[in-house]
Amino acid sequence: MSLSKNNLKLITSLQQKKYRQKQKLFVAEGIKVVKELLNSSLEISQIYTTDDSLEFINGIDFTKISENELKKISTLKKPNKVLGLFKIPEKSEEIINSNFILVLDEVNDPGNLGTIIRLCDWFGVTELVCSKNTVDCYNQKVVQSTMGSLTRVTISYVDLPSFLLSTTLPVYTADMNGDNVYTSKLPQKAILVMGNEANGISEEISEIVKHKLTIPRFGDIQQTESLNVATATAILLSEFKRVMI
Amino acid sequence: MSLSKNNLKLITSLQQKKYRQKQKLFVAEGIKVVKELLNSSLEISQIYTTDDSLEFINGIDFTKISENELKKISTLKKPNKVLGLFKIPEKSEEIINSNFILVLDEVNDPGNLGTIIRLCDWFGVTELVCSKNTVDCYNQKVVQSTMGSLTRVTISYVDLPSFLLSTTLPVYTADMNGDNVYTSKLPQKAILVMGNEANGISEEISEIVKHKLTIPRFGDIQQTESLNVATATAILLSEFKRVMI
Repeated sequence: MSLSKNNLKLITSLQQKKYRQKQKLFVAEGIKVVKELLNSSLEISQIYTTDDSLEFINGIDFTKISENELKKISTLKKPNKVLGLFKIPEKSEEIINSNFILVLDEVNDPGNLGTIIRLCDWFGVTELVCSKNTVDCYNQKVVQSTMGSLTRVTISYVDLPSFLLSTTLPVYTADMNGDNVYTSKLPQKAILVMGNEANGISEEISEIVKHKLTIPRFGDIQQTESLNVATATAILLSEFKRVMI
Repeated sequence: MSLSKNNLKLITSLQQKKYRQKQKLFVAEGIKVVKELLNSSLEISQIYTTDDSLEFINGIDFTKISENELKKISTLKKPNKVLGLFKIPEKSEEIINSNFILVLDEVNDPGNLGTIIRLCDWFGVTELVCSKNTVDCYNQKVVQSTMGSLTRVTISYVDLPSFLLSTTLPVYTADMNGDNVYTSKLPQKAILVMGNEANGISEEISEIVKHKLTIPRFGDIQQTESLNVATATAILLSEFKRVMI
């Protein structure tokens, strides 16, 4: 068995969002990530491997390929033995009425989204709601950087203003001129909205969000840059969750 | 004026640590980062720009180059008008006796180091001490991701075990089996040691560090991956500093 021309074309096409959406498939690579996804409820479409002695593909229908073939379909600098095509699960339109929801407004960087999905997983946030212009969670860089957390967080892409207007939970965001997060009384049931890397949340969203929180700076206030969106999310999720201890 | 062959060679050589150390120079790119560094105490070696109307290079001795020349010396996907060579400041061997010191034990990823330097700047941590095998802070990816914070944090590369053995400050680290950070009484004067992306802190260091802190997980304990080192650092710095409010 080896890699057909059609499959090579299919797999490389999945680097683009439009083909992922058309084929309802996404790519995951490397032993660690593929193994985690195989242990999840995701449906497998194809598994390609250069090493048929890998234990975790025992009993799975895989295709043995050469190192050279793997290089052709991999986006990693160092391809790592296995590449899987998985089916993108059907999304129910409805957002589960969670107690705590993290919302992203136009987060663009795949690495940041991946890190934020891992944070959700760590802090038990099972519901992540994204604006439609947030980077696709099946983007290969996101899949690789989530390290499997992807399967434990439900991610929806919605029209944010109407979602936020329809919720009954209190809505918070990070803002340079908000209340000090360390001295604010934070509720256990809430929505936290985090914004774009360069511009923060959009004006439209800012008008909807009632509660603004500031992470105080301790450095030189004149000069310090803002925090990266993933580290700010880490600190704020930690603040919302620490009250539960 | 334009770019000489020798300068082209010099600049591209600075992508490697050994040449940065030999020449005592590093590269910074793009309007935002170069502007910040020009406003710092760093000494300029050379400024190259495609746009001599940029206000912040007024009065500075620069070399006008073409878009094509900039492309040749840039490591950015989208070169952004200006590239500067700056002198690596001489390091005093001594570590200033700060109240709070962040220590990194073999952090390898330039993006993580950059994010951590920004965190130091935000939280007023002016002293960052790294093991000798931590990624070089003048690595171009680090310089780009610090967004200027690099000039406000003093970074030293030292023999970590002897540094930690010689300090009188209490030494903390992150550990899966430590005390709950949310319920621990944290001192204002302390050293926090963060470890390698894959392996955490080394065994040698672990034996020296007395106080181990855990960021509790709220997710599925069986499955959740560990936190990324930059997000864990964000949460722990926030915990050390929030007691000062």
